[in-house]
Amino acid sequence: MRDFSQDHRWLSINTATVRRQLGQDWGLLHILDACAGRGIRAVSPWRDQVAAAGLQATAQHLKSHGLELSGYCRGGMFTYTDAAGRQAGRDDNRRALDEACTLGAPCLVLVVGGLPGALAGAPAHKDIASARAQVAEGTAALLADAQERGMPLAIEPLHPMYAADRACINTLEQALDLCDQLDPARSGAIGVAVDAYHVWWDPKLQQQIARAGRERLLAFHVCDWMVPTTHLLEDRGMMGDGVIDLPQMRGWVEAAGFAGYSEVEIFSRDNWWQRSGAEVLDTCIQRHRRCV
Amino acid sequence: MRDFSQDHRWLSINTATVRRQLGQDWGLLHILDACAGRGIRAVSPWRDQVAAAGLQATAQHLKSHGLELSGYCRGGMFTYTDAAGRQAGRDDNRRALDEACTLGAPCLVLVVGGLPGALAGAPAHKDIASARAQVAEGTAALLADAQERGMPLAIEPLHPMYAADRACINTLEQALDLCDQLDPARSGAIGVAVDAYHVWWDPKLQQQIARAGRERLLAFHVCDWMVPTTHLLEDRGMMGDGVIDLPQMRGWVEAAGFAGYSEVEIFSRDNWWQRSGAEVLDTCIQRHRRCV
Repeated sequence: MRDFSQDHRWLSINTATVRRQLGQDWGLLHILDACAGRGIRAVSPWRDQVAAAGLQATAQHLKSHGLELSGYCRGGMFTYTDAAGRQAGRDDNRRALDEACTLGAPCLVLVVGGLPGALAGAPAHKDIASARAQVAEGTAALLADAQERGMPLAIEPLHPMYAADRACINTLEQALDLCDQLDPARSGAIGVAVDAYHVWWDPKLQQQIARAGRERLLAFHVCDWMVPTTHLLEDRGMMGDGVIDLPQMRGWVEAAGFAGYSEVEIFSRDNWWQRSGAEVLDTCIQRHRRCV
Repeated sequence: MRDFSQDHRWLSINTATVRRQLGQDWGLLHILDACAGRGIRAVSPWRDQVAAAGLQATAQHLKSHGLELSGYCRGGMFTYTDAAGRQAGRDDNRRALDEACTLGAPCLVLVVGGLPGALAGAPAHKDIASARAQVAEGTAALLADAQERGMPLAIEPLHPMYAADRACINTLEQALDLCDQLDPARSGAIGVAVDAYHVWWDPKLQQQIARAGRERLLAFHVCDWMVPTTHLLEDRGMMGDGVIDLPQMRGWVEAAGFAGYSEVEIFSRDNWWQRSGAEVLDTCIQRHRRCV
């Protein structure tokens, strides 16, 4: 297992972590400046942040700072209620792939979608099995597009508390079953993003990380689970402040062959988003060394 | 599958559902009166409500109304930090068993506990595997006490969002693995409480319900998952208001041999606890006929 205590060369910042500081939108180019200025070598930006900053401007800014990507957030949202929704989703996912290629991302992270309409507050039905079938079909179709472009797809299983509205793939086992179905040869074209927040509770976690192996482990995200947790979406903790044994989990993914970045992704409406971006980034660096 | 549309003979009310109406504590004996007055045949009371009303008074009141129990809430909380805590837990669980016997419960429901100290806001450590080992050990010890008394134990897997502070058994598969370990003969002495709220998201749910079978299916709880869900503990929905396909799930448990009550358990700080108990019970009856 790599020693993180002496430097932060394997730290990546998911740009949502510092997007809303003190109630202000911290633009993506400023986030990149702030990361590069601290010797952070990698980021994972969100599509809407890239769109606001401009795709070419972002690519140029990354290049000028020598910043790598640890992933691109995000494609997916495969569930739909009609043919038009299906086609619009497919087109949008292709654009996400193209952006990921332009930015030099190692993978496009997929949040697969929940019951159609649920994220907007109006679920079209209660048939989660059919939503999962749409996800499998949509992922298969996107995989062909991704392979043409040489861009790996990383399915991110989300915590079961997001099954209704964000992602109906909710365990690592389920995500790996889909990978095996679509890519039995383990070609590297499709794998998983393991986010500690989503999977830490899983009694089969160690076993399934081992099953995933190097070919399927495309990204590793860290933050912490707070006790108590006060909001389902925006109360993630800073590494070390909660109950996830992050070094143990990193040990498992590294034993399985993962050797990439530990990407910090914290949505924290009432705590970390209420502090300056500088304080948050400095804390990420400290905690990366001590608690990951 | 039984037809629930014509009557509510298989409806049970978990007494937490109407415990805090309009900000007032609705005493257990009044709850029993209100249930019996509506032709509800079964309840599942909580230990603190029984203690407040008195054990013998509760038993007498149940008998005079001809009310059955669908379960007794609850034992468990097996995780501890020291020998004194372990012993205190064991003694308390034995008292819970005795109370369940006095009240004529069909099973003692077990919420197994999370990381020790976490429910009080001070987790003693981050080692969920050791918490799970304590749960297995504590359940094994309690099973001996339960068998002496002829009182079945029903392990309730809780939603993964409660893994840290309430229960580190989080899937039906995990609960059934523990049952198989402790009771390979499927004697009926230990099984599971399947609560729709906790397990609806699970991609292996149908398979694991079938695996459980009649010998392991000791209780079936219903409510609904709201979109959005605004609070991790106290925003459960009334059947029909959320996204759980309850008739499908009931079909699965009945196909596996379950023929008992559908127990309504709703914690709803801002909605159902803000209405009169009469309105809530009447709504439970209507929704039991239409949506379960």
